[in-house]
Amino acid sequence: MNPPDPAVLAMRRAELVRLFDTAPIKHLFGMVLTYDDQGSAVFDLPYNPGLDHALKGTHGGAIATLLDNAGWFTVAPHFDTWIATVEFSVRLHQPVAATHLRSIGRVVRLGQRLSVAEMEVRTDAGALVATGSGTFTVTAASRG
Amino acid sequence: MNPPDPAVLAMRRAELVRLFDTAPIKHLFGMVLTYDDQGSAVFDLPYNPGLDHALKGTHGGAIATLLDNAGWFTVAPHFDTWIATVEFSVRLHQPVAATHLRSIGRVVRLGQRLSVAEMEVRTDAGALVATGSGTFTVTAASRG
Amino acid sequence: MNPPDPAVLAMRRAELVRLFDTAPIKHLFGMVLTYDDQGSAVFDLPYNPGLDHALKGTHGGAIATLLDNAGWFTVAPHFDTWIATVEFSVRLHQPVAATHLRSIGRVVRLGQRLSVAEMEVRTDAGALVATGSGTFTVTAASRG
Amino acid sequence: MNPPDPAVLAMRRAELVRLFDTAPIKHLFGMVLTYDDQGSAVFDLPYNPGLDHALKGTHGGAIATLLDNAGWFTVAPHFDTWIATVEFSVRLHQPVAATHLRSIGRVVRLGQRLSVAEMEVRTDAGALVATGSGTFTVTAASRG
Repeated sequence: MNPPDPAVLAMRRAELVRLFDTAPIKHLFGMVLTYDDQGSAVFDLPYNPGLDHALKGTHGGAIATLLDNAGWFTVAPHFDTWIATVEFSVRLHQPVAATHLRSIGRVVRLGQRLSVAEMEVRTDAGALVATGSGTFTVTAASRG
Repeated sequence: MNPPDPAVLAMRRAELVRLFDTAPIKHLFGMVLTYDDQGSAVFDLPYNPGLDHALKGTHGGAIATLLDNAGWFTVAPHFDTWIATVEFSVRLHQPVAATHLRSIGRVVRLGQRLSVAEMEVRTDAGALVATGSGTFTVTAASRG
Repeated sequence: MNPPDPAVLAMRRAELVRLFDTAPIKHLFGMVLTYDDQGSAVFDLPYNPGLDHALKGTHGGAIATLLDNAGWFTVAPHFDTWIATVEFSVRLHQPVAATHLRSIGRVVRLGQRLSVAEMEVRTDAGALVATGSGTFTVTAASRG
Repeated sequence: MNPPDPAVLAMRRAELVRLFDTAPIKHLFGMVLTYDDQGSAVFDLPYNPGLDHALKGTHGGAIATLLDNAGWFTVAPHFDTWIATVEFSVRLHQPVAATHLRSIGRVVRLGQRLSVAEMEVRTDAGALVATGSGTFTVTAASRG
């Protein structure tokens, strides 16, 4: 696979930041997307009490959302067409409550049909909350 | 492991339905918990446009939330103390948009320290949207 | 996806049983493949002391091999070309030692590009040893 | 969790290398265990044609065995008692044939009851073949 030009990657990342701003779930959760210098997607989620489960911690589903996002948005800029999440795993290392969370993705492998990323979620103090990995498939759907 | 008495299980399930009603994420998403005749937890999520991603489908993180819930609430009634999700996997079989979703859990194995459940999400028309499985650990935290 | 004719499926299953007989790992491990009435691949592994780990049980890698095989051979007959395992998960429910093991697969979803199966391993007395699930991709490689 | 003294870790790693030498599967497969300077378990598997599947590549179950081993032996030295694999995932990035393989583990989290490791398999030329991650539970069984 010929990797895209760095300028193309940078342009696509900027487009994806704008796209994410139109995502209803971004606003419901309060997530913010940036890309770091290595091109990894970084999602910040300031504490949102609406995402608590009944035992007063942040729901694992919110953490899974951060992991899925970090993988998808890290892999997506590498392709001309849209990608779709095939599967992802979530390992929860410690419960968290009332804390700002940050997820980040890392490309493991880019393939013409299937790509793999690893993702993690930490508190803003750096404590490891969750890790995951996922497979993403390249679809025929144009980014339009 | 001695399984709890059916009356105890039924009582705990009723308590868990009441507990879930106090979960902020229940209200943010609009999920409803019931238990079926086999004692499996069933979560209904009427279409909530706030859970859409930017490409106009239901976000995989919302589907992961339904899977995690279905496993946790199916396993939890079997134990005196609280359980915690250790890890779970999510396989997304088809994208969904603007659709009522329903998840259901099934116990695979109950152990004194670790239990395993399988979960699925379908549309209300019965189409398979996602499957997952998870490991849940029994904690020392009293339900009290 | 148009499913193959039942006669085609039966023919392909018979071919796969013959193919598996040429697999070196079949002979190293001592595995036997059959298909049950539902078309699920069934692998029998009589106790092979060579597959023990140092603590005198059957190695998890041998159990993973049975799970991978059960999924692959359950899905493969449904496609004209070869499939390849993309990923699979292994959950080990109890240690086993000196026991005949049997794995079986079940189709969860058949897709034109990606399919999913669930698999389990039991002792010949029926005790649940392991469960898993996997994603399989359809390749362009002709069965030739 | 108080981490063991480095001298204790080194002693346990040396014991585990000796233990692995008594594992029947080590000899059936032809695997060699060493530890690197960071304390990660490294497994070398020179090409063993007996581990080929029928389509002339190394079976995914052999690769899963390398991943499981790399995680287990990386985590085990950190505990007084034996650990057991709870679950692990396997992502296969490319088929391999007739190649020396090497797996390596990395600790993600050490907990009093549950620990997590990431593992990878590469060819001896460094090409990424597979990645995985796993959960390991601390048992009451003395290393004796």
